[in-house]
Amino acid sequence: TTKKVLMLPGDGIGPEVMRQVQRVMDWMAKKRNVNFEITEGLIGGASIDAHNNPLTDETLADAMAADAVLLGAVGGPKWDDLPFDIKPERGLLKIRKEMGLFANLRPALVFDALVGASTLKEEVVKGLDIMILRELTGGIYFGQPRGIEERDGVRTGFNTLVYSEPEVERIARVAFDMAMKRDKRLCSVDKANVLESTVLWREVVERVAKDFPEVEVSHMYVDNASMQLVRNPKQFDVMVTTNMFGDILSDCAAMLTGSLGMLPSASLGAADADGKRKALYEPVHGSAPDIAGQDIANPLATILSFAMMLRYSFDMGDDATLIENAVQNVLKGGLRTGDIMQPGMAKVSTTVMGESLINE
Amino acid sequence: TTKKVLMLPGDGIGPEVMRQVQRVMDWMAKKRNVNFEITEGLIGGASIDAHNNPLTDETLADAMAADAVLLGAVGGPKWDDLPFDIKPERGLLKIRKEMGLFANLRPALVFDALVGASTLKEEVVKGLDIMILRELTGGIYFGQPRGIEERDGVRTGFNTLVYSEPEVERIARVAFDMAMKRDKRLCSVDKANVLESTVLWREVVERVAKDFPEVEVSHMYVDNASMQLVRNPKQFDVMVTTNMFGDILSDCAAMLTGSLGMLPSASLGAADADGKRKALYEPVHGSAPDIAGQDIANPLATILSFAMMLRYSFDMGDDATLIENAVQNVLKGGLRTGDIMQPGMAKVSTTVMGESLINE
Ligand SMILES: CC(C)[C@H](C(=O)O)[C@@H](O)C(=O)O
Ligand SMILES: CC(C)[C@H](C(=O)O)[C@@H](O)C(=O)O
Repeated sequence: TTKKVLMLPGDGIGPEVMRQVQRVMDWMAKKRNVNFEITEGLIGGASIDAHNNPLTDETLADAMAADAVLLGAVGGPKWDDLPFDIKPERGLLKIRKEMGLFANLRPALVFDALVGASTLKEEVVKGLDIMILRELTGGIYFGQPRGIEERDGVRTGFNTLVYSEPEVERIARVAFDMAMKRDKRLCSVDKANVLESTVLWREVVERVAKDFPEVEVSHMYVDNASMQLVRNPKQFDVMVTTNMFGDILSDCAAMLTGSLGMLPSASLGAADADGKRKALYEPVHGSAPDIAGQDIANPLATILSFAMMLRYSFDMGDDATLIENAVQNVLKGGLRTGDIMQPGMAKVSTTVMGESLINE
Repeated sequence: TTKKVLMLPGDGIGPEVMRQVQRVMDWMAKKRNVNFEITEGLIGGASIDAHNNPLTDETLADAMAADAVLLGAVGGPKWDDLPFDIKPERGLLKIRKEMGLFANLRPALVFDALVGASTLKEEVVKGLDIMILRELTGGIYFGQPRGIEERDGVRTGFNTLVYSEPEVERIARVAFDMAMKRDKRLCSVDKANVLESTVLWREVVERVAKDFPEVEVSHMYVDNASMQLVRNPKQFDVMVTTNMFGDILSDCAAMLTGSLGMLPSASLGAADADGKRKALYEPVHGSAPDIAGQDIANPLATILSFAMMLRYSFDMGDDATLIENAVQNVLKGGLRTGDIMQPGMAKVSTTVMGESLINE
């Protein structure tokens, strides 16, 4: 069976890191007889430039028809001054929502070879391996009503944070499933001492917990969680939280590793009758417009996102591991792109990094 | 003129750290002829136990009549299972709201003697001195509508994030004033690429900026801010943000210093015709019920909160500096409470720490 993959390179360094994934896919087709049927599409600024729209119906239809989507990155200063409604980010939010990608998996992993890149002391982060589950299609990102209007003559901006029981339940189930495959510890992060919406969140997580008696569950307020990530991140295994808190905490956790250019992510929808989920994979890093087009960006986060695709969309865990090991080996061999450069290592280009990975 | 101070020791370690402040006040009365008229009151769990109410009208009236309020800490497992509406936290939120304390000042400061206590590398945090301005009486903490209800047969929790122009403007002005007294750099944190309420926030900050041409202003998305605090916290001077983002980021910043037991905070209201502001001072740390009553808690954050009171409520900057220097000296002398204990230092009790400070 061919695997239908939609590639959305996006903006900034998106296209050049995506090219290295393409090479890995070519290698897999040739050497391991894995066939991908690849479509390319536009999203974000690139789509605005071509169609005045950060996500066209055509690209969306391609995404819905694909088995998996791989995204580079969106946004850049060129489109910063556009009105709120047609900014590049809108394309990203729309594709998540329309594809129903409610479960965002953001691993924060410290690679042994890169432990020195963290701003935290080695003993605090060595071996760190957290999985953050962020709810991605609900909460304050999508809640209605929202806007800016005059109220009694005063301009007022408002947004709505809203979660229903089924929305919380489905992300909680993914989180517990994930915990079962890992160290069986789940920390749910909320602000139940202030926000009623997260009182409900906590209740639902507690209810779902009954179906997973082996998982050790804890609840933490978001302010404490942001402290604990800095104080002792290794206390966590799986964390699950709302869209907004997940945005903040997963970026904090990513930065603890010191190597943003290394971190992949996956966004998954609900399983259909055949157990298949709509899925989009993307690196955690942004479009880095300042270094775009110079062949110096780190392609490993996008390649690792592709590995996640193999694991979660195509049940090809062995091939995913093959790629992940190749990444470890390339790092052990001393190759580094600029973002993870350390004294005594060899600084290489985007292209050379991709090539070395394939050789591994 | 006597200075009317309301002391609210609260729960857990609150009363014992407050006792050390009391000693500093006694010393000031005797040695420097500064007279405080002190009232005591209940808040949080202590008030629930006595009156079934985390903040009585009487305590609130005392707070309104005082020149300044000093608070210990509220909350603890004893009251964790109470319904949302009568939890200890409600007392804290109510006193902030009723007193109109919209400007929460949360310094994150690394004391030279304690730089080793941080989980971050010494070069990343040595000399760190950030001031976070958190909006404290608006945003999602207080927005209406809020609650949990059935919608089409589905239980749904909801909260409202709302900011009006005047609300943003007054906190922005405090932030710019603060920046003028410091390094003239202000970073406003929002999520203007997703939340309309913070599009308005950003607009208002930009407008107020015109009145402070000497201040270098930047805007940062909250996810990036949480990364940048970990990556390179010293890039910041003053940060200003919403109630919810401020809750998360100020705790993250506090933990970067490695010594939560050292950090004070101030919450200020609007200036009246005489330029006086309602004010409440409290340590950043919580009520630490696990170590309460053992005379081992660190009283320095509360003593430093009292120093902030001298500076901001009583225009006694010199006396504030006197206390702050005494804290530095006690630390240099090698005394440590358990929370900041390091090899080779002398571990002391709450009482001894207070005493040593007074001797200094
Ligand atoms: C670009 C932005 C809308 C997006 C988000 O906030 O979800 C990004 O920060 C992310 O985390 O993927
Ligand atoms: C106790 C809680 C309501 C409070 C808050 O969220 O404001 C606390 O976390 C704080 O930061 O002072």
